[in-house]
Amino acid sequence: MLRNFLVRSASSHLKFGERYVKSSAFLGCYKRRVNYYSTKVQSRLTSQNYPNIHRDPRFKRLTSDDLNYFKSILSEQEILQANELEDLSFYNEDWMRKYKGQSKLVLKPKSVEKVSLILNYCNDEKIAVVPQGGNTGLVGGSVPIFDELILSLANLNKIRNFDPVSGILKCDAGVILENANNYVMEQNYMFPLDLGAKGSCHVGGVVATNAGGLRLLRYGSLHGSVLGLEVVMPNGQIVNSMHSMRKDNTGYDLKQLFIGSEGTIGIITGVSILTVPKPKAFNVSYLSVESFEDVQKVFVRARQELSEILSAFEFMDSRSQTLAKSQLKDAAFPLESDHPFYILIETSGSNKDHDDSKLETFLEKVMEEGIVTDGVVAQDETELQNLWKWREMIPEASQANGGVYKYDVSLPLKDLYSLVEATNNKLSEAGLIGESPKPVVGAIGYGHVGDGNLHLNVAVREYSKDIENALEPFVYEFVSSKHGSVSAEHGLGFQKKNYIGYSKSSEEIKMIKDLKAHYDPNAILNPYKYV
Amino acid sequence: MLRNFLVRSASSHLKFGERYVKSSAFLGCYKRRVNYYSTKVQSRLTSQNYPNIHRDPRFKRLTSDDLNYFKSILSEQEILQANELEDLSFYNEDWMRKYKGQSKLVLKPKSVEKVSLILNYCNDEKIAVVPQGGNTGLVGGSVPIFDELILSLANLNKIRNFDPVSGILKCDAGVILENANNYVMEQNYMFPLDLGAKGSCHVGGVVATNAGGLRLLRYGSLHGSVLGLEVVMPNGQIVNSMHSMRKDNTGYDLKQLFIGSEGTIGIITGVSILTVPKPKAFNVSYLSVESFEDVQKVFVRARQELSEILSAFEFMDSRSQTLAKSQLKDAAFPLESDHPFYILIETSGSNKDHDDSKLETFLEKVMEEGIVTDGVVAQDETELQNLWKWREMIPEASQANGGVYKYDVSLPLKDLYSLVEATNNKLSEAGLIGESPKPVVGAIGYGHVGDGNLHLNVAVREYSKDIENALEPFVYEFVSSKHGSVSAEHGLGFQKKNYIGYSKSSEEIKMIKDLKAHYDPNAILNPYKYV
Repeated sequence: MLRNFLVRSASSHLKFGERYVKSSAFLGCYKRRVNYYSTKVQSRLTSQNYPNIHRDPRFKRLTSDDLNYFKSILSEQEILQANELEDLSFYNEDWMRKYKGQSKLVLKPKSVEKVSLILNYCNDEKIAVVPQGGNTGLVGGSVPIFDELILSLANLNKIRNFDPVSGILKCDAGVILENANNYVMEQNYMFPLDLGAKGSCHVGGVVATNAGGLRLLRYGSLHGSVLGLEVVMPNGQIVNSMHSMRKDNTGYDLKQLFIGSEGTIGIITGVSILTVPKPKAFNVSYLSVESFEDVQKVFVRARQELSEILSAFEFMDSRSQTLAKSQLKDAAFPLESDHPFYILIETSGSNKDHDDSKLETFLEKVMEEGIVTDGVVAQDETELQNLWKWREMIPEASQANGGVYKYDVSLPLKDLYSLVEATNNKLSEAGLIGESPKPVVGAIGYGHVGDGNLHLNVAVREYSKDIENALEPFVYEFVSSKHGSVSAEHGLGFQKKNYIGYSKSSEEIKMIKDLKAHYDPNAILNPYKYV
Repeated sequence: MLRNFLVRSASSHLKFGERYVKSSAFLGCYKRRVNYYSTKVQSRLTSQNYPNIHRDPRFKRLTSDDLNYFKSILSEQEILQANELEDLSFYNEDWMRKYKGQSKLVLKPKSVEKVSLILNYCNDEKIAVVPQGGNTGLVGGSVPIFDELILSLANLNKIRNFDPVSGILKCDAGVILENANNYVMEQNYMFPLDLGAKGSCHVGGVVATNAGGLRLLRYGSLHGSVLGLEVVMPNGQIVNSMHSMRKDNTGYDLKQLFIGSEGTIGIITGVSILTVPKPKAFNVSYLSVESFEDVQKVFVRARQELSEILSAFEFMDSRSQTLAKSQLKDAAFPLESDHPFYILIETSGSNKDHDDSKLETFLEKVMEEGIVTDGVVAQDETELQNLWKWREMIPEASQANGGVYKYDVSLPLKDLYSLVEATNNKLSEAGLIGESPKPVVGAIGYGHVGDGNLHLNVAVREYSKDIENALEPFVYEFVSSKHGSVSAEHGLGFQKKNYIGYSKSSEEIKMIKDLKAHYDPNAILNPYKYV
């Protein structure tokens, strides 16, 4: 690991480009997968934790006739039935183990046509269905609440086509994001989206939830990069819109409706997406600043100086790094002392010398201006990976004490961190925060400053109604008062179904409900969620 | 103008960066407005040219009661009525003068509430309405076919808000694109879209038609950069979705439906859009190559070498430049001799030295490899403007002989130019092409290679059914056979209403028609068009 450059930068002749910035030219898979199951087993069912939610009596309970039908269209490997031999917990529980459904049947069809047959049957029979990708969601959107049938896309996992001239990838929805990325990386392209769960989440799942992640600042949202979709509608109709054109103005852009629809109006089975040329050079720098005001100042400078090569601008508060330290025991902390805030900056470009020079200029300016108080720049791929770990370990570290309440919000930049402070105050006032046996470890803040996206994680020793009541609707009211969004990138799912009103007007909600009813009149798709 | 660099590049020590690439650091408004009325007056009405299209008898003909109502809610300046004093040709005719409607009434409301009142009334009374922005469309989408009321957004022309930290602009739909761009330019940002008609077209109009233009290669489509919209629905309901967050996953992304809907399901009255940091440096190079295959090779090289600073990659065929020469009489052609194809490359970035160096490396490679046979690089802002003229003059030059049939299609890169060759063959076979009195001057091709977007312009001395019958459905069948789009960026409008089936499947068309009927059950918005 590099020594910090604070003392050295006092010299005006410092050459970061030559002496310090020497990370290797290409780093494809340096970000580790952070996606594992909570250590705390959730023994209570969602239906027990939320007794006010009732099973919708319109939905049929599965019968042996239904099973026989599914057996008639699917092979044995495509059907998982709960019994003495088969435990469906993996499918019934989310990865945080906050939500636990009671499904007795998981179908894993191997073709789009089978997805169509299943939905057609379920629609006719009024059987509720939960579409499930990698089940890495954070709002309980991919697990059943009651006995909904689980339709897993995991067996639809083929790359269909890749055009190395245009960079357009067509694949099944169930392809794991990391596999898709590795595939295009071999042909000098890169998936335009990256996130911690890449080793488990599906391409279809990230599209269905309009995932944001670590590359949005540079490459924009999936609404811009997805070129086409194949979708099975609730009645089983297959809509093939797998186009591969950057420009196509022929009719309403219907695919947009399914991006971020969380499986409520159709199931995405195929994705056509524009990938981006693989950068030839990466740099990562880890900096400290003394206030959130200075985080913003560094961001403005980074946009000016790093401009077209700036690919990530993440901030982490002190407490988030303290938690990360407890998990990264073998790793030396990048800096010599603790600071209130840390920033991770990534650049990616096509010319290492140019990128080094821009980073050098940027670092000299922020050091000279005294905004940045300490920092390191990765010298090689290993160091680059290590620096990213301090950002990527946070979700895991947040719940290492037992559990975590996760909020993912958009806020104006100036208000971004005040939510974390307000939340800690609120939990203190409620007497919930402190050393064990107090249930709350603390609220931490980190996230994508460049996108105005804060992750507020409340690390807890156990899930409890007291904590939830202290947090909600408090967090949502705060966000609403600042005209933010109660879901920046995680979605609504089960957790935020009742809170959409804090971000959307009654007209908008009415239109959303109207579209849901229009496309899914029997309401069989992903019930009890979204809207 | 620079001398060509062909001979000089024989020297391996050439330094483009030092000696040739000296364009000034910032060029905001160097692209001239190309948007004027055809010299050929179209005396025939659209209804005469297309006798198979009949006025929909469901629509009410305007009465004095209707006029009295509009007078009760609007001021005198907001109403234009056809009479001896008032000629509504400007509103009834498109800028190519291909289409001519018969509207007797133009309303130019000054507030969103008035737009709402007008639509509410028209919906109740079944009065057909054509929303109109800058009326710069190329497919007859913004002018009436019969006696539809014209609702012009020209008086909704205020900048509402601009946030210099995030770069998010909120403005009325009727703000002229160039004004919006100039406004944010003063604050070091740039509108993410640029096109020839910028001096006349409206921000709302470019969103309603999902215009592509010259910056799409770099900044992506409006589906990615538009953050929020204010829309008045056909029944007059105002839907305020003027959000200003890069990330907001709370419900279906309804605004996407209106982007590219061409005013058929709602009228956009306000736009919230993410602008981009203004580049600090621009370079423009104008090159010649000997085949379309070499155009593609240069493109692949440009993506590799210019990567994150490549902001435009336009190609022009020989005939397009011959036509441009006839218009740009005072200007010297950039190169010494004629070639089959020309390429205009623009880079924009944050560091002039780095950009120059990248361009130099790129040019050295394509010259050494013998792909590029001649070329110049702009040395200053004037030269940069002049080089762009050879691309931007083409639409005007195409119709200088009397008129132009314009096709705007997406095709796989390898097939992009073959459509132009096929079209010239087809017109020759039909005996339509040649010197006067043959009606067709010739088919030319140019466009945005980076987006797979070809502009096929058929320059004619007069519009005629013979030409139209030779071109259509021939052009659309060709595009369909290559799995392209019959409208890359111009939209469907009136011209392509019946040709959507060449790009979209019957399921997709059914869903599009279903949405139209859902949101506009009386079909009052922009009838006889789109779908």
